[in-house]
Amino acid sequence: MTIKRQPGNKQFSDSAEHNGVVYVRGFTADDKNASMKVQTQQVLAKIDKALAAHGTNKSKIMSATIYITDMAIKAQMNEAWDAWTDPNNLPARATVGTLLDGGALVEIMVTAAK
Amino acid sequence: MTIKRQPGNKQFSDSAEHNGVVYVRGFTADDKNASMKVQTQQVLAKIDKALAAHGTNKSKIMSATIYITDMAIKAQMNEAWDAWTDPNNLPARATVGTLLDGGALVEIMVTAAK
Amino acid sequence: MTIKRQPGNKQFSDSAEHNGVVYVRGFTADDKNASMKVQTQQVLAKIDKALAAHGTNKSKIMSATIYITDMAIKAQMNEAWDAWTDPNNLPARATVGTLLDGGALVEIMVTAAK
Repeated sequence: MTIKRQPGNKQFSDSAEHNGVVYVRGFTADDKNASMKVQTQQVLAKIDKALAAHGTNKSKIMSATIYITDMAIKAQMNEAWDAWTDPNNLPARATVGTLLDGGALVEIMVTAAK
Repeated sequence: MTIKRQPGNKQFSDSAEHNGVVYVRGFTADDKNASMKVQTQQVLAKIDKALAAHGTNKSKIMSATIYITDMAIKAQMNEAWDAWTDPNNLPARATVGTLLDGGALVEIMVTAAK
Repeated sequence: MTIKRQPGNKQFSDSAEHNGVVYVRGFTADDKNASMKVQTQQVLAKIDKALAAHGTNKSKIMSATIYITDMAIKAQMNEAWDAWTDPNNLPARATVGTLLDGGALVEIMVTAAK
């Protein structure tokens, strides 16, 4: 069965699709000086774009893993998340605190159906 | 292809099923003052229930990601895990140390076939 | 649909296959005193072997989650990664900083098509 990938950089694809499932890479925000809320908004916009490249969208996300560097500001991430998600089609989700690279406060990796 | 979700809260579904695969959210224990072992038992009971809602069970878990806050008491998590798993049908697994929210010592996210 | 597993230890399978998707466990290096680069090489060799057991290979990896204990030496992980990956078939990827067990500097968990 064919695998369809969207180019990322020299280390990873932005996404890979196989048998009706789209695996999207962990995205971080471009503006690493922005607040957790703004960084999350930027990440979610990238996910929208990645999913669109495969003809799918946020209403078909199956699972999301959210990595944040500071649990004390998780609420800010949720604010952006709540404004973005389709309330009738919420993903299964885990949110955990990890180190991230280069000033990122949040990184989100999703798997979607199409 | 249809996606079937089990409701969670306003931020996530408890689970989402597509094409014979069930994605279960990261569960934490209700009792955040309990030991790692007891918290793990509570998490695993929630996973049982989530899988049953899709007509599947722990013998069909493909992969499990286990987030714990303290690697020094990983053995306690494993005690509960070992008592729960189907020894003939063990998932692929990763266990990593992360921050978790609200006193949780362990969070487990699984993907299962049905 | 049949699930095919490769044995790991008493807690997990090395891998589990269902409906053309292979879920590989998080592997760490055998030599926990080795550098990040060498540990990554050892991990990637284990992934090669696990995928081969299911008749697939690194060119069909859909997603990879890379856990490292020290973001300051992420470049060493990438050196080994870049030398290993199929540049025309790169996985979706996330790299996050976590605690790991027993001196491991890196753990990698992949999902592949076959």
